[in-house]
Amino acid sequence: MSRRVVVIGGDAAGMTVAAGVRRRLPADDEVIVLERGRWTSYSACGIPYWIAGDVASPDALVARTPEQHRAHGIDVRLGVEAVGIDPGARTVSVAGGDDIAYDRLVIATGAEPVRPDLPGIDGEGIHGVQSLDDGQVILDELERGPARVVVVGSGYIGLEMAEACVARGFDTTVIERAPTVMPIIETPLGEQVAKAMLERGIRLRAGAGVTGFVLDAGGRVAAVRIGEEEVPADLVILGLGVTARSALAKDAGLPLGAKGGIVVDDRQRVTGFPGIWAAGDCVVSRDRLTGDLIHLPLGTHANKQGMVAADSIAADLLGEPPRLTFPGVVQTAITKFCSLEISRTGLGEQQARDAGFDPVVVSIETTTVAGYMPEAGTMTVVMVADRGSRRLLGAQIVGAEDAALRIDVAATALATGLTVDDVVMLDLAYAPPFASVWSPVQVAARAAVKALAG
Amino acid sequence: MSRRVVVIGGDAAGMTVAAGVRRRLPADDEVIVLERGRWTSYSACGIPYWIAGDVASPDALVARTPEQHRAHGIDVRLGVEAVGIDPGARTVSVAGGDDIAYDRLVIATGAEPVRPDLPGIDGEGIHGVQSLDDGQVILDELERGPARVVVVGSGYIGLEMAEACVARGFDTTVIERAPTVMPIIETPLGEQVAKAMLERGIRLRAGAGVTGFVLDAGGRVAAVRIGEEEVPADLVILGLGVTARSALAKDAGLPLGAKGGIVVDDRQRVTGFPGIWAAGDCVVSRDRLTGDLIHLPLGTHANKQGMVAADSIAADLLGEPPRLTFPGVVQTAITKFCSLEISRTGLGEQQARDAGFDPVVVSIETTTVAGYMPEAGTMTVVMVADRGSRRLLGAQIVGAEDAALRIDVAATALATGLTVDDVVMLDLAYAPPFASVWSPVQVAARAAVKALAG
Repeated sequence: MSRRVVVIGGDAAGMTVAAGVRRRLPADDEVIVLERGRWTSYSACGIPYWIAGDVASPDALVARTPEQHRAHGIDVRLGVEAVGIDPGARTVSVAGGDDIAYDRLVIATGAEPVRPDLPGIDGEGIHGVQSLDDGQVILDELERGPARVVVVGSGYIGLEMAEACVARGFDTTVIERAPTVMPIIETPLGEQVAKAMLERGIRLRAGAGVTGFVLDAGGRVAAVRIGEEEVPADLVILGLGVTARSALAKDAGLPLGAKGGIVVDDRQRVTGFPGIWAAGDCVVSRDRLTGDLIHLPLGTHANKQGMVAADSIAADLLGEPPRLTFPGVVQTAITKFCSLEISRTGLGEQQARDAGFDPVVVSIETTTVAGYMPEAGTMTVVMVADRGSRRLLGAQIVGAEDAALRIDVAATALATGLTVDDVVMLDLAYAPPFASVWSPVQVAARAAVKALAG
Repeated sequence: MSRRVVVIGGDAAGMTVAAGVRRRLPADDEVIVLERGRWTSYSACGIPYWIAGDVASPDALVARTPEQHRAHGIDVRLGVEAVGIDPGARTVSVAGGDDIAYDRLVIATGAEPVRPDLPGIDGEGIHGVQSLDDGQVILDELERGPARVVVVGSGYIGLEMAEACVARGFDTTVIERAPTVMPIIETPLGEQVAKAMLERGIRLRAGAGVTGFVLDAGGRVAAVRIGEEEVPADLVILGLGVTARSALAKDAGLPLGAKGGIVVDDRQRVTGFPGIWAAGDCVVSRDRLTGDLIHLPLGTHANKQGMVAADSIAADLLGEPPRLTFPGVVQTAITKFCSLEISRTGLGEQQARDAGFDPVVVSIETTTVAGYMPEAGTMTVVMVADRGSRRLLGAQIVGAEDAALRIDVAATALATGLTVDDVVMLDLAYAPPFASVWSPVQVAARAAVKALAG
């Protein structure tokens, strides 16, 4: 008897599940994807580069089109918005259409930009950045030539969008509530980023919480309010992070965690709801260091979780043992901003303390390649270790070209529970055009060993 | 009572030991370093960049001068050549001087270029590259303007020297006995390197073993002989690798292993000879994957082994428990050559087979950054995994800028025994200017997982 897998959401997680189950299931089983937009499998992370003009069109950001997916036997239905789930009846209701029955359901509804509940937030010209459609809206706005762009929030997307706007010649201001930019990295590193930002000609208002938006007579944004002050703005880009787009799941009674993320087990099964899986930006993931369930919406996790969910569903339907589990995350992230590369993994000092560790924190300066090479740039590595166990807890890097990707060594070490002593003894690559004889992460680990002894 | 630590050799390993014990021991203990040359703590790996003109002078390659070491209380004696060790009497004899008694001895005599026993090898103008003095000799030769330079051997140093020579405008030929260049990487990767080399204008004679050197009437090299053929050459650079400089150790009856490397335990103690330690290019190191003792002369290992030996000696003399052990190596290496970056770690296919594994080998092509970014370059990753245990055994990368350092993820994974499944699930850094959503090493790991299933 033919079975039907229904996937809600056609981006990274959803299409990975759809493609994965399609490959494993017999041809007479159905795989249906309900996507409310008009794109599938696109790179939302590429939007700032499209806005900046580095990438010519949104098509370039699409890894696989609906037609390509259909050619592989996936029934992709665009412009179809799921509006309800009945886990008992195993049906999904859609706007303006008949209910769709499912045997197995996947929720991959993604995330949506945080829109703070402030006066004027619904004015025209105030946009978040999450989908390709959002990107197109902002691009259209920029083509109208705003005199002043204000970006609210200085996380990755906020900074990347600010740089894209200034690259296109717009007067751009970033407003950040915290004392400096990028609260996700330690303050001294954030200060380096703030400096690079000013050098690039981006205005910065740090330590300033937005209190509302001033709209003109036509209902369009005219300024951003910080306390009594008004910062003029013709276009506002919201970079305040995202929350899980999980209203559907909530309405169906599914369990939600941090930032509305759907709670799933390590096979992406929704806890307590047989027949329902969830993956990607709409779920919470387990932090491998703390065990906490956190909301960490990133394409890398979406892809892996999609693989895991596909394996779990296929195994379930085929009566085979599942092969994959999602082991969780270590909060690795990276970006390039102005003249700097920035990356992090694991826990920052406060996160480590909050998780009950006794953190030792060191910060070192080193060169990107052997110091005597003409192309040597500088970089700062911050490392956090646990005093009792000597385990590596986290690392952060800010530096010149070729600095930030070294975070992957720390990310790999975190996944395996290495101590800072172990990191010192790793056999990492060395040649003068690539590193000093001690790789930057090892320079930091040596400093951590010293700090632990002191 | 004052004790005396004598170190033979003043480069990376020797000076790391000397500095380490000096920091730990009371001021009235003596730390003496016998260095036959005139430099200390220099980067031999930087020599090709000095020859190429990227680095202005050999001074830039010196991390710490003899004067700086002396200022830290180390008795550095330059131009002093140790010629004998008496482990029973605990003395070192030196050329033209009195014997020096020691309480603890460190042998850090480094390595020397392989000079094959071929007709004409002792002619003028045939040079290895190991010390700064060797570098100066070659630089002086190049300043005389040789019409044709021939590099024998295409390992790292051979290729780096060939590129340095061609960068300075010399007609340069590389001769390699194996079918293609860089036998340390898999053949298809070596072929990519060979192609880049030809594009750079370096001549290549692969599959050609040198049978001797033709000397002119003055005893200077005029050609390199390959069978009956003579390849004209005014300067020959030997890039045939190095062997441990361990004649002293051998004469004293110390145990030697591969390529003459002194056999030590994981605290760098010479097996069976209490009171003697050895470290750096003159020892053999344990491969973490196979358990074999191999000769792997690299500055990274020399530094770590020096730290371990210093800790062991200081602990021994102070009656404290030692803290460090050297865990061994995974054969990580990296270089930049012509338009390519090249790196490797772990075992190649044949090495894996020789070690008793059942290797599965995959090769993938991917981009250095997200494929839609304008700066995307291509790279090839070869991965070797063990069929039975699914463990990662090795990886090799050849590609454009920003390709090769990703080998560090594999090197870290090897140190901790990760399977290819584990590698797929690592939380590695992703943003469009740095990688695709699957990092290159993960793209290869996914291919390995697929190959293991097939």
